[in-house]
Amino acid sequence: MAHITLGNDLPGIVGLLNFRPQTGRPLSELAEVLLRGDNSLSRGERELIAAYVSAENDCRFCYSSHAASAEAQLPEGTAPVEEICADPAAAHISGKMKALLDIAGAVRQSGKAVTEQHVAAARAAGASDVEIHDVVLIAAAFCMYNRYVDGLAAFTPDDPARYKAMAALVVEAGYVRGDA
Amino acid sequence: MAHITLGNDLPGIVGLLNFRPQTGRPLSELAEVLLRGDNSLSRGERELIAAYVSAENDCRFCYSSHAASAEAQLPEGTAPVEEICADPAAAHISGKMKALLDIAGAVRQSGKAVTEQHVAAARAAGASDVEIHDVVLIAAAFCMYNRYVDGLAAFTPDDPARYKAMAALVVEAGYVRGDA
Repeated sequence: MAHITLGNDLPGIVGLLNFRPQTGRPLSELAEVLLRGDNSLSRGERELIAAYVSAENDCRFCYSSHAASAEAQLPEGTAPVEEICADPAAAHISGKMKALLDIAGAVRQSGKAVTEQHVAAARAAGASDVEIHDVVLIAAAFCMYNRYVDGLAAFTPDDPARYKAMAALVVEAGYVRGDA
Repeated sequence: MAHITLGNDLPGIVGLLNFRPQTGRPLSELAEVLLRGDNSLSRGERELIAAYVSAENDCRFCYSSHAASAEAQLPEGTAPVEEICADPAAAHISGKMKALLDIAGAVRQSGKAVTEQHVAAARAAGASDVEIHDVVLIAAAFCMYNRYVDGLAAFTPDDPARYKAMAALVVEAGYVRGDA
């Protein structure tokens, strides 16, 4: 049960966004632009970064949600998200994606953990300055969303079908919706 | 020097928000509603929570900015922000503020570090559910802003007068401004 009385039984962050629409709006808009706005990184790649940070932060709601959204949007034949998140260095993904996940993992620990070497490796693998900016901000933002959800002990469904259904809604209608 | 080429020499997060206005807008709007929107916690109290989390995360730009904004808005006679941040439990602040900073410190470590005891202590000291929600989200948000600024090695001025001037601008015009 959540630490506070939300007045709704919506899952995870959705319940929190509805409890406090004043903060819910910018939080939803940030997720929309980060994960779905125009970008040279695909929506699936950005959801994968969000899932990876959430896995490392052990936030089950955010991990399950964004892993489902990544699975729904990554091209067929991509390695399973669970496998990539467990060991990105060993996964069958591009060198650029490995370098970006490496930066995301550093950001998760601390901003100061990102070194010039991390950035140089991402550039050498083909990442642009905007992509490096965006991966830092996506990782930082999930350090917020994860803490928000778990810090208030938001409701975390067990059934994988719930996350698949939420992902389908996100793929179709995005993160800024009338219903949530 | 920042890890990426920002094309401006604005300080800290201001340079980042200008580099990428698409993400800058929701990030600024979130800061505005969290730190300055209608709230039973004063603007000074909320800036103090932001400064405390930034100090614990060792983010010098965010700490200096929000400590200056807290100093500018807390009532005269309040203990120095630096003293409160160094040891909230020993500081001359209300029991309610101590309990809220205690929650913020837990959120900073991990969402899961917030216990029912933290929440019960805040309630016993007079905190409402909305205040508990807001302190969790402010602390979580500064785990993002801190990582964003340090993860990109944004320019951090040394001169305290720069932070005082930025705080004066925030007190007057808020976080959503045409200039930044």
